[in-house]
Amino acid sequence: MPKITDFLTELQAQLSTPQGRGIKIKQDPRTIKRFNHDNSYHASRDPAAVISVKTEDNVSLVMRLANKHAVPVIPFAAGSSLEGQTLALDHGIVLDFSDMDKVVEVHVDDLDCVVEPGVGWSELREELKPTGLFFPPDPGAAACIGGMCGTNCSGTLAFRYGTMKDNVLSLRVVLADGTVIKTRNRAVKSSAGYDLTRLFIGSEGTLGLVTQATLRLRRIPTHSTVIIAQFPTLASSAATVQHLVQSGCPFLRLEIIDDLCIKAVNNEIPDPSKKFAELTTIMAECAGTSQDAVNEQLEAFKAACGTIAQNVTMATTEQETDRLWSLRKRAFFMAPSLRHAESEQGKQFSTIVTDVAVPISRLVDILVATRKMVDEARLVSPIVAHAGDGNFHCLMVVDKNDKDEIERAKKVRDDMARLALKMQGTCTGEHGVGLGKIHLLEEELGEGALEVMRRVKKALDPKGILNPGKVFLEKKGSKL
Amino acid sequence: MPKITDFLTELQAQLSTPQGRGIKIKQDPRTIKRFNHDNSYHASRDPAAVISVKTEDNVSLVMRLANKHAVPVIPFAAGSSLEGQTLALDHGIVLDFSDMDKVVEVHVDDLDCVVEPGVGWSELREELKPTGLFFPPDPGAAACIGGMCGTNCSGTLAFRYGTMKDNVLSLRVVLADGTVIKTRNRAVKSSAGYDLTRLFIGSEGTLGLVTQATLRLRRIPTHSTVIIAQFPTLASSAATVQHLVQSGCPFLRLEIIDDLCIKAVNNEIPDPSKKFAELTTIMAECAGTSQDAVNEQLEAFKAACGTIAQNVTMATTEQETDRLWSLRKRAFFMAPSLRHAESEQGKQFSTIVTDVAVPISRLVDILVATRKMVDEARLVSPIVAHAGDGNFHCLMVVDKNDKDEIERAKKVRDDMARLALKMQGTCTGEHGVGLGKIHLLEEELGEGALEVMRRVKKALDPKGILNPGKVFLEKKGSKL
Repeated sequence: MPKITDFLTELQAQLSTPQGRGIKIKQDPRTIKRFNHDNSYHASRDPAAVISVKTEDNVSLVMRLANKHAVPVIPFAAGSSLEGQTLALDHGIVLDFSDMDKVVEVHVDDLDCVVEPGVGWSELREELKPTGLFFPPDPGAAACIGGMCGTNCSGTLAFRYGTMKDNVLSLRVVLADGTVIKTRNRAVKSSAGYDLTRLFIGSEGTLGLVTQATLRLRRIPTHSTVIIAQFPTLASSAATVQHLVQSGCPFLRLEIIDDLCIKAVNNEIPDPSKKFAELTTIMAECAGTSQDAVNEQLEAFKAACGTIAQNVTMATTEQETDRLWSLRKRAFFMAPSLRHAESEQGKQFSTIVTDVAVPISRLVDILVATRKMVDEARLVSPIVAHAGDGNFHCLMVVDKNDKDEIERAKKVRDDMARLALKMQGTCTGEHGVGLGKIHLLEEELGEGALEVMRRVKKALDPKGILNPGKVFLEKKGSKL
Repeated sequence: MPKITDFLTELQAQLSTPQGRGIKIKQDPRTIKRFNHDNSYHASRDPAAVISVKTEDNVSLVMRLANKHAVPVIPFAAGSSLEGQTLALDHGIVLDFSDMDKVVEVHVDDLDCVVEPGVGWSELREELKPTGLFFPPDPGAAACIGGMCGTNCSGTLAFRYGTMKDNVLSLRVVLADGTVIKTRNRAVKSSAGYDLTRLFIGSEGTLGLVTQATLRLRRIPTHSTVIIAQFPTLASSAATVQHLVQSGCPFLRLEIIDDLCIKAVNNEIPDPSKKFAELTTIMAECAGTSQDAVNEQLEAFKAACGTIAQNVTMATTEQETDRLWSLRKRAFFMAPSLRHAESEQGKQFSTIVTDVAVPISRLVDILVATRKMVDEARLVSPIVAHAGDGNFHCLMVVDKNDKDEIERAKKVRDDMARLALKMQGTCTGEHGVGLGKIHLLEEELGEGALEVMRRVKKALDPKGILNPGKVFLEKKGSKL
């Protein structure tokens, strides 16, 4: 790989310049291993080097040289992506943003803040707490703003506040050739030319690298209550959510956790009296600027649950709120515990996570069909749903060494996505395309839309060095 | 213009084919005159021809031939744009979408609908009323969905529901060469590849032509009340709005109408007892799913008004609501009445509308500075503000034949925009760039961002036939 050598030599020579100061080049096996995978089931890929950056100037320098030498660059902060977005294909270098983690400005009076891409949303939430403001998107706990822009993520609060697209006002971006641009100013509304902010959001690092993001903040609701209700079937819980969404009631969150998922979370609860009944559960958060607003949502929730629901439980203390939310928060991590007995025998597991979303009226249909597919494929897979948005995840716990099981899981993932497409839904509600859904994206949008994406990519990154091999193939029918 | 002749000849020959059926070619002076201007102060430009289309197939055919002959195509539906977006530069043809005005599907259970670009938002609102749902963006009354996508418009409801970007789920678009694509499916959340929906929204017809839009609908609030309060100064009204926005209270609308604007609207009210006091006025709409929710907002509003506000008036009947809203609705149309005496002398007036938006904490500063600029330039200009979004319009009523006055108005427009940029705001909150703000867009975003837009444009429309000369100049420093 002579181009890598030339690139690294030239970069090395720049480390003492003002633009290069702060850059660290790492090629030791331990660092390579830390940056060769993400949170997904995709096979690890060793980067040729890991370059840590501290400033926008650093990023611009790296990109100028990488472009000159046609070296692929893969952005990385938390590595919490679920579709292989941070894997270093084509012997590229990983650009490590974890040191660009400053909250640059907080404008309390404008309800916005400016942050670097390595800032984690959960740390940001802590830091902002004294201001009474917060940034709504809440994906996996480790996720950082840079990657969150990349995948257009969301989480449990999207039902009220929308996804990253709806919560980022502006970006500073380094392009493939090292040019730095800003996409917008800080006004909450703007029609100033093409919406470059939202062109970069969701582009998974293939069009440019975010070096600063201006985030729209919201006031933390002064009043909120978590309520859960349990249902005899997945279908009856989903039907209840459909009804609640159609009613227009402004819940803060509206989630479904299926019976198997409850079972997994129960595995972590030692005290039998604290375990939850293993039934599919709707978890809602009712919130507003007054207790009246909360009560109104609670009443609507209870009314919709009717007589079918069991164990309607409202959190009355912070401790109880935490206990109820732990159900949702622990789902991803506890899913493998369903195969604990096999782990004891030395088997190793990973989780293949699906991510389809459908128009809300189809939620019952797709959940019922999905449960059937999963069962028929003999897979262990809890289901959690950002039900208010018609979006859900199967957490398919597969034996890393059981090729047949993995193939069955991939088939279910594809079949489920194709069913969602038939319902005019999407193969990815919030995790992005990465490596795992390239074939599905083309089925979803068709060749024409893919060709537009390719042309935009080519226009902004003519050498194809930014996160190559992700989202779509560079040419129709080409293979990775 | 031989290319036009060749294009029209070839198109004419296709009119009896399945793809061409429904197309009408018009070149009579009356039609040319109807389609040679928009709602702005920009000078009219005669198109070479007006082509009326009825189907997506028609649009695709026209584009294929226009691309072949390099004929510029300017999309047109209502012609209600305020920055010259529909003017036929470069001897182009106008593509008239007003016959593509079908509501194709309404999915009540999914809270969305599919419409053609010639559907007007106000007609759509009427049509949807029986379903209990509505589409929030509410720009000028005549505006159609196609143009609304083009400018990423919004209106008085953006404070709660956002702009077009936040309310369009998916588009079908005909590209420069006639290719038809869809940008998304109907799920409310999707991370499926680049966000082409939002690339086309706000591109003012320069990247592709919308032939179908899937719109997100909301439930009409079951309870709502309009309340107004009048203030001794523009500054005190704006300070009150800033405070209300910062409080996070979820008003439906939050508008400011200045004293001069009230005077203009009063000109239309014959009964002196029905006229409004000529004071700057905040108009809020409080709305929700219960009277409690409304009352909470009303109380927050009254508390923020404190003792400074006068004439706090709440609408208790539908008639009173209409009366209060007429203040805002009639502003644009009544502004010229401020120069009625001169009209009587035979002078002709047009209105130059500005459209800056700033971060909310700067609303007082920019409004006060703007009022000073306008007064110092001896202009007659009411101010109306979508205050909750930090967005406002000066309605500068200028004598069409007074070149000096027009120059003064343009200077104020530019000075005001530059002041907004200093405050990290935008030169256009919702009307778009069109012809009138090309120079300001470059100041706002810088050459790097403009170059990205040019590259995207070149990638999707290599011959530059889609609405040429709008949004930005094709080359840096080039003139129209």
